[in-house]
Amino acid sequence: MDATEFRRRGKEMVDLIADYLENIEQRTVYPDVEPGYLRSLIPEEAPEEPDTYEDVVKDVERVIMPGVTHWHSPYFYAYFPTANSFPAMLADMLSGAIGCIGFSWAASPACTELETVMMDWLGKMLKLPEDFIAGTHGQGGGVIQGTASEATLVALLAARCRAVRMILASDPQRPETGINSKLVAYSSDQAHCSVERAGMIAGVRMKKIPTEQSDKYAVQGETLRRMIQEDKAAGLIPFYFCATLGTTPSCAFDHITELGHVSGPALYKIWMHIDAAYAGSSFICPEFRPLLNGIEFADSFNFNAHKWLLVNFDCSTMWVKKRSDLIGAFKMDPLYLKHDHQESVDLFHWQIPLGRRFRSLKMWFVFRMYGLKGLQDYIRKHVELAKEFESLVRADQRFEISADVVLGLVCFRLKGSNEVNETLLKRLNNGRKIHLVPCLLSGQFVLRFALCARTTESRHIREAWQLITQLAEEVMQELPH
Amino acid sequence: MDATEFRRRGKEMVDLIADYLENIEQRTVYPDVEPGYLRSLIPEEAPEEPDTYEDVVKDVERVIMPGVTHWHSPYFYAYFPTANSFPAMLADMLSGAIGCIGFSWAASPACTELETVMMDWLGKMLKLPEDFIAGTHGQGGGVIQGTASEATLVALLAARCRAVRMILASDPQRPETGINSKLVAYSSDQAHCSVERAGMIAGVRMKKIPTEQSDKYAVQGETLRRMIQEDKAAGLIPFYFCATLGTTPSCAFDHITELGHVSGPALYKIWMHIDAAYAGSSFICPEFRPLLNGIEFADSFNFNAHKWLLVNFDCSTMWVKKRSDLIGAFKMDPLYLKHDHQESVDLFHWQIPLGRRFRSLKMWFVFRMYGLKGLQDYIRKHVELAKEFESLVRADQRFEISADVVLGLVCFRLKGSNEVNETLLKRLNNGRKIHLVPCLLSGQFVLRFALCARTTESRHIREAWQLITQLAEEVMQELPH
Repeated sequence: MDATEFRRRGKEMVDLIADYLENIEQRTVYPDVEPGYLRSLIPEEAPEEPDTYEDVVKDVERVIMPGVTHWHSPYFYAYFPTANSFPAMLADMLSGAIGCIGFSWAASPACTELETVMMDWLGKMLKLPEDFIAGTHGQGGGVIQGTASEATLVALLAARCRAVRMILASDPQRPETGINSKLVAYSSDQAHCSVERAGMIAGVRMKKIPTEQSDKYAVQGETLRRMIQEDKAAGLIPFYFCATLGTTPSCAFDHITELGHVSGPALYKIWMHIDAAYAGSSFICPEFRPLLNGIEFADSFNFNAHKWLLVNFDCSTMWVKKRSDLIGAFKMDPLYLKHDHQESVDLFHWQIPLGRRFRSLKMWFVFRMYGLKGLQDYIRKHVELAKEFESLVRADQRFEISADVVLGLVCFRLKGSNEVNETLLKRLNNGRKIHLVPCLLSGQFVLRFALCARTTESRHIREAWQLITQLAEEVMQELPH
Repeated sequence: MDATEFRRRGKEMVDLIADYLENIEQRTVYPDVEPGYLRSLIPEEAPEEPDTYEDVVKDVERVIMPGVTHWHSPYFYAYFPTANSFPAMLADMLSGAIGCIGFSWAASPACTELETVMMDWLGKMLKLPEDFIAGTHGQGGGVIQGTASEATLVALLAARCRAVRMILASDPQRPETGINSKLVAYSSDQAHCSVERAGMIAGVRMKKIPTEQSDKYAVQGETLRRMIQEDKAAGLIPFYFCATLGTTPSCAFDHITELGHVSGPALYKIWMHIDAAYAGSSFICPEFRPLLNGIEFADSFNFNAHKWLLVNFDCSTMWVKKRSDLIGAFKMDPLYLKHDHQESVDLFHWQIPLGRRFRSLKMWFVFRMYGLKGLQDYIRKHVELAKEFESLVRADQRFEISADVVLGLVCFRLKGSNEVNETLLKRLNNGRKIHLVPCLLSGQFVLRFALCARTTESRHIREAWQLITQLAEEVMQELPH
């Protein structure tokens, strides 16, 4: 395919995309296929000679679409949102065409520099403390990671490196190899599974801090303080705490000001990382910004702009107060990556992979095409829709709300057994009209209703509720309540 | 921006992309900017109200392009190639629109299933042993990672997990915490810096195996065997060896058959991972496939289809013989990720991040639009051009070839001091007509000429050589030779 054919096929693809998104509501949100469905629909091997483009495009509808879970359908309420906007898609097309691999400044200066400035733009939207802004002389700054999992891991590795250095500085005779086995990290028992996984990867202990329904599933400063004291008494070395703002099960918020006083530099020199993967986007609204109070105690902060800020995946935005902490943990300098401007920022020192796409173009297009106000409106619309759904649930005596509705997630359940709720969810998903996933809160099986699609409106919410109550009625008649 | 405007702007973007790539030759391949150039060209904060799309697009040329290193210019010979093809860009547009996050099978069955089948297609093109093919009943299979760095790390983590399990199985009383500090991994001193970094991340020793120019920079089985024996005698536990096929400095090939006999299951139960990041694509040609002989000894194998196989970044293709080894190292099963088809493949257990894009669409479009023959032709053309460049170098008595030219990389230098070669490279890059990066081989500063762009032709090679000889003449006249 040459450029001339691309001009034609590209324009057809633009129409195919617009058609798909304009009519997505008419598709079954959750696919009706069994594992292995696809293999029999296509050949067992790649063709020797080229297929025609017409055949390839025809197969998108025949082979792919029947197995797609439509994350951008207004009937999709599962997990958390993933962003999808037209400006982001346009920027991504451009990024693909430029196709630079921006590991170092020299590998494409624009790629590194736009990223640093866009992270400053976003940091200012969030009113982050000055420490986190790169500016022209700052010691901190931001970087785009692929996912929150990677940000959590990168922060943990930087924390480990800092801790080992501090220990060796105070006790140079201590053998370095034994230190790792004494290190201990902490996170909430509500934290995302990737936090526990980060500990596994780095080969360090990760302790889960218990939370209570009565505390709204937030980690209490006192609990963390006690665990740290016990571990220190047992000869362990606490070095990292991952706080969560907006947990995956119920969108709970740890009290980071209180926790900051425990883990902050004054007392224990524990690295505090804040994972606000979902909730972070909302902090651009003044009314939600207080949820981030205490950020001044953190060493690093991350959220997924690719979740709720209209920037298509992947764009997980992470800031650190001291970039030297990150860079020091990873620095590798082979000659083939050196260049004449070593004083510049080389972002591969900030992340696990070496290669990186030109992802800041998406931020640039989206921030400019929506403006801060447009982005705020978008967040507020989802929160309002969640409140509307909450009211519907609260108005029905058979149901209960299982956790505070702060942003765009409503956790709810039928009063009664886990079994009845499990059956209800199964029926809902098997109906394939709407799609939800569950969570477990204090042993209770709970349904999560997450506002996800850009195009979800009040009528979709009411339609979803009607379906839920209708199936609930059926389930309750069948099962002992 | 709504779908109607996207139809218009998307088509304009398709033309902008086609224009950019058709005329890329006329741009300066290596940008003439200083660190910090971009910040002053744009506002310090995001706009409150939306900008117009016209302004955004105008700024692409004003703000971005002056700072782009044009990786797809036929004058770009730096690093290694990164892929860029029209079918891949079309597929990526579609992937962005579907915008599913395919962490689990249920999160979008098509995303997981097409990936597994595409990895089988590619595995068959490479004539991988049956063990690495998923098929319908295989124990192995493939997965798309973001980068080779991640594949190396994932393999190392799986190896660590398997080693710890084996040790605990044979000695259940042994405390698990101490094992990590006894583990030792190996790689060539020519291996990519990300291999050493993988060891740092996992907190395990990584030893570099010395190589010699006389052995063509390949790791010798005897050297590895000796190091393993010494380490075992010292109470350490060898568990992982990363072999390289096509090293970054000089495209050297470790002798994996010989090494496989050392690290293979029979003798030491060491996990052998093969990193063929660049060279891997060439193994689809029968004449280069012998370079992969010995693959049967490997536990895992990876190369970057996004480098040399026309599939745009990111698409780092990795296979394992036993997927249970990978999955076991990472498995996390929170309720919000469970679904009714737990017998299916959930690819987030195979990787560091949780989220993942629908990247296999790019493979599907590219394999079908080129066909195997088209892909082979593409590889062969680059190798031929490299041979042509090699001939030009060899015909000039002032220069020498510094390493065997096997694929699309030519390592060469002026006979003489490192200083004269450093000066030559500096002049070349400052001239900004062509772009190369150096490497260090046996203490010698060497210029790397890597065939990169899809559109590079013989005339570009000859033009580059003319420029090199012209600047070499200048440099030699100025510096004592």
